[in-house]
Amino acid sequence: MKKIINQPENIIDDMLEGFLYAFGSDFYKDETENVIYKKSQEDKVQIIIGGGSGHEPLFLGFVGQGLADGAVIGNVFTAPPPQAILEASKELDTGKGVLYVYGNYSGDFLNFDMGAELADLDDIQNRTVAVCDDVASAPRSNKHDRRGIAGDIFVIKIAGAASEKGYELNKVAELAEKANENVFSIGVALSPGTIPGANQKTFELPEDEIEFGMGIHGEPGVERTKMKNAEDLTNKMLEKLFSEADLEENEEVCVLVNGLGSTTLLELMIINKHIHKAFEEKNIKIYDSDVNSYCTTQEMAGASISVLKLDDELKDLYNQRASSPYYYKKERS
Amino acid sequence: MKKIINQPENIIDDMLEGFLYAFGSDFYKDETENVIYKKSQEDKVQIIIGGGSGHEPLFLGFVGQGLADGAVIGNVFTAPPPQAILEASKELDTGKGVLYVYGNYSGDFLNFDMGAELADLDDIQNRTVAVCDDVASAPRSNKHDRRGIAGDIFVIKIAGAASEKGYELNKVAELAEKANENVFSIGVALSPGTIPGANQKTFELPEDEIEFGMGIHGEPGVERTKMKNAEDLTNKMLEKLFSEADLEENEEVCVLVNGLGSTTLLELMIINKHIHKAFEEKNIKIYDSDVNSYCTTQEMAGASISVLKLDDELKDLYNQRASSPYYYKKERS
Repeated sequence: MKKIINQPENIIDDMLEGFLYAFGSDFYKDETENVIYKKSQEDKVQIIIGGGSGHEPLFLGFVGQGLADGAVIGNVFTAPPPQAILEASKELDTGKGVLYVYGNYSGDFLNFDMGAELADLDDIQNRTVAVCDDVASAPRSNKHDRRGIAGDIFVIKIAGAASEKGYELNKVAELAEKANENVFSIGVALSPGTIPGANQKTFELPEDEIEFGMGIHGEPGVERTKMKNAEDLTNKMLEKLFSEADLEENEEVCVLVNGLGSTTLLELMIINKHIHKAFEEKNIKIYDSDVNSYCTTQEMAGASISVLKLDDELKDLYNQRASSPYYYKKERS
Repeated sequence: MKKIINQPENIIDDMLEGFLYAFGSDFYKDETENVIYKKSQEDKVQIIIGGGSGHEPLFLGFVGQGLADGAVIGNVFTAPPPQAILEASKELDTGKGVLYVYGNYSGDFLNFDMGAELADLDDIQNRTVAVCDDVASAPRSNKHDRRGIAGDIFVIKIAGAASEKGYELNKVAELAEKANENVFSIGVALSPGTIPGANQKTFELPEDEIEFGMGIHGEPGVERTKMKNAEDLTNKMLEKLFSEADLEENEEVCVLVNGLGSTTLLELMIINKHIHKAFEEKNIKIYDSDVNSYCTTQEMAGASISVLKLDDELKDLYNQRASSPYYYKKERS
């Protein structure tokens, strides 16, 4: 797969430079580290997100109003270094503390943990939510061992809204963790992406087969089958989600249909159709559904479905306006 | 390439159903034809866009505030039928007339022309702008033979803003045509997409070659070369654009870096960097740059660069707020 890059060792610098050229009126970069901040800072709990690159627009595209205040950007599929996490914390903290939100991977866990310890030494209050929404990656009894995939978006949305409401750090962390406890995702992989620079496929899959539950770095899934049509494929994903998320009649949820890279909006819309049909049959109300490619793996083909179970508190936060270069939700009441 | 679809003959119906499930609070579908309308109709000139499917989010994703009022959706790579264009005109016209905006392809030209004649018979005033921004598709002396690619977005943006200002039909058409005269695009193809259902590649290209100027349906380009790095590839595209668009020092332009499907945001950002560097060198001011995948060809890899030359009138219109499910610009002054 051809990639439009220069020297592989410069792709992150090049990308961030391009990002700032496009959006520099609202964002700036840390002087020394690969961190993107929004310019309109408020005196509130600061939401810091981050992780490895290669999944764009996640994470840098989710810094904005009602979302994150800063994004710490690692190299491709590599956790950002603790020093960058500390720098972001020092730059953003207004005395009200910072909440770290990232996908639950061992590298991110270690580095954010170390960053948090360094922040402690600088007397920056901090809390952490490691998003663990991928139901295929660990059994339900070990929910907190699960990987974080597109469910990140819901947790970032809720954390950003809670911090904008002016809640204090523990309350913001509690609400973000509540979102995390209530978000369930499952993916299906159709074909691999390629790591830019390394020219290396993230996995191998026969031309007529697909893999349910495969992770966004090519981590093994739960079942490999022959290719299915959209309806069967969606229903198979939903079967797992329904059983994992304990969805009950008359419950309200938000849904995200997330493309993994080269799967088209046309296909994602068709998946969304079948999700709504299935939820209607079960009398579960979809309060909002979003169809986009937010958490990608280069040109990987496939999609994930994420479900956020709502209560009044989460719904109220979901209704707040959010706006970043790659995410927009108008205020809703 | 595996595609997440059901029966190929139903993909458009399935897609539109999925779209309405996601965005049905703001949009509705024509009772008989494949047309998407926005619910919040205003008494103004109505902007009707359309063309073949397969390029999502274009066209249906650009119905919204400050953009189009309706989108007429054809089958994959197929112009929408005249009857659907007429229906859209009848549904939307408030007596102030309709402006048709579409990409300049023979099928679209013929069908919109016939739709316009039918609208005439129904006493619906109408005007047409066929976007012709692709500099690789015809020489400059035959500008109006050029194909329409991602430059569509700029023309839709300007047309939508002009109609919202309450201008009468001839003025809205004149402004949209001015945008069209001032938009220049060029694409580069890295690898083909696949027509869903037909399982047919849009073109063939050796693993180490790329083609400049290739069209979004695989139409032949102007030059095939070995793969280049991001800087050289961008500069080669710009060379053509600079000479075609007569860009002069101190001029102001808007830029769109458009991904064709599977080319990642990471890569598009790198292209954007090199565009800004090159424009800085030439003392041409980039008033705004946008980096996204708006006009795609399934999982085709590659990108296009579009430049809109601004004057005060176009800038004023560009500054207006625009919001649709896949496009958002805040108001700017």
